[in-house]
Amino acid sequence: MKTAIIGSGNVATHLAKALHAAQFPIAQVWSANQQNAAILAKATHSSVMNQLHLIDPTIELCIIAVKDDAIATVADQLKGFKGLIVHTAGAVPIDVFAGNFENYGVLYPLQTFSKHKTVDFKTVPLCIEANGVASIQLLHAVARQLSGNVQEIDGTQRKILHLAAVFACNFPNHLFSLAEEILDEHQLDFNLLRPLILETASKVQQALPADVQTGPAIRNDVQTLAAHQALLAHQPKLLEIYQTLSESIKKTR
Amino acid sequence: MKTAIIGSGNVATHLAKALHAAQFPIAQVWSANQQNAAILAKATHSSVMNQLHLIDPTIELCIIAVKDDAIATVADQLKGFKGLIVHTAGAVPIDVFAGNFENYGVLYPLQTFSKHKTVDFKTVPLCIEANGVASIQLLHAVARQLSGNVQEIDGTQRKILHLAAVFACNFPNHLFSLAEEILDEHQLDFNLLRPLILETASKVQQALPADVQTGPAIRNDVQTLAAHQALLAHQPKLLEIYQTLSESIKKTR
Repeated sequence: MKTAIIGSGNVATHLAKALHAAQFPIAQVWSANQQNAAILAKATHSSVMNQLHLIDPTIELCIIAVKDDAIATVADQLKGFKGLIVHTAGAVPIDVFAGNFENYGVLYPLQTFSKHKTVDFKTVPLCIEANGVASIQLLHAVARQLSGNVQEIDGTQRKILHLAAVFACNFPNHLFSLAEEILDEHQLDFNLLRPLILETASKVQQALPADVQTGPAIRNDVQTLAAHQALLAHQPKLLEIYQTLSESIKKTR
Repeated sequence: MKTAIIGSGNVATHLAKALHAAQFPIAQVWSANQQNAAILAKATHSSVMNQLHLIDPTIELCIIAVKDDAIATVADQLKGFKGLIVHTAGAVPIDVFAGNFENYGVLYPLQTFSKHKTVDFKTVPLCIEANGVASIQLLHAVARQLSGNVQEIDGTQRKILHLAAVFACNFPNHLFSLAEEILDEHQLDFNLLRPLILETASKVQQALPADVQTGPAIRNDVQTLAAHQALLAHQPKLLEIYQTLSESIKKTR
């Protein structure tokens, strides 16, 4: 299945490499950043598409993995493309393609990607949606080649998933970063926390998080809660976060 | 080195098993919960101590792993014990032992323990502190048998570590739980988020969290931020957390 990749960011790169590894011939890569496009094209033995309307007409699958607010513009320039066209965004409705394409959908990988870290794509939940029976069958076939975890998820559910992912990934990562800030102020090494962070995530792979909640707030350990707040007295931002999250934990007791 | 374990909760259990595996003869186990004491004694081939003042006088190491606010009471009842006595709490000062013992310290394992999940103790950072040269040397020798990551950390630093651990473990776990709540309301399976949670923790094993922050807040993606807040309009608690953490992330841009 001859494929084009639009974009050269983290999602585009990981997806292109997973498709390449699954024997999908990547024919063309386009990116607003021509240099990144060249790097990705080289890695996937494909060629760079200079302009979107020059997309090879024999391409059967076109995957748009660009910033959310660029999807509509890119799709507009690909108007008339005859294959299956999909985007990879959690928060953008499938309707962005309506009217301009016959076969379209969404292939949303529910994972966080960084350029220099390999991800086992086989375990990445792929959430798919398409505009009709033929499209969804085709997209299922594509997704199954990439991952063992493919789910049909409609636009409303995908928005919810995207929101939940902010709570499950973006916010925890920020808290890791605040923890590092706290250690830094006292010349303590972030390495001390790394095993704890990994184990916290590992625990909820089987258990439900509410069942394994630990710490002073869930015990309503008033003394420790007060001591922690005293330590944060000079940092109003951290103090507010400490109080907001501790109150929320206490309510689950 | 003949050892006694005071406590039978998660820390006591994991530590006792790690000591047992490292060939420390566990001689006695005490717990306010006699049934749990019996289970732990059986698992470590030791016997149950019925009362604290009945501690075997030939014991060389006594580890107190009970709730923070019970440490002083327990220590008081062990007064006169001649070996090395330590507690395992992040937030309790070493002084809780002062005056009543000759050799004392703290052995704080910076990890989250659940009863039914094995932890590779060799990777657990063990933060140690003791009241003198002889005690710290002895405690070093004990800790090195258990973990490859032993650090001398004084009481002030330990308090900071304990606070940072709340940000790195307790708060993220609560956010996982809120993510599950969001999915639940829309009949979506928490399994969809598990690979994401694991990868988020895995990423910061090498990288610094601030360098791998993703999501709408760090991009200042105003549209998505507004859409997410609209989805949370009926849940003031979640909305407050969303806003507090998003604002904090935005400040790091």
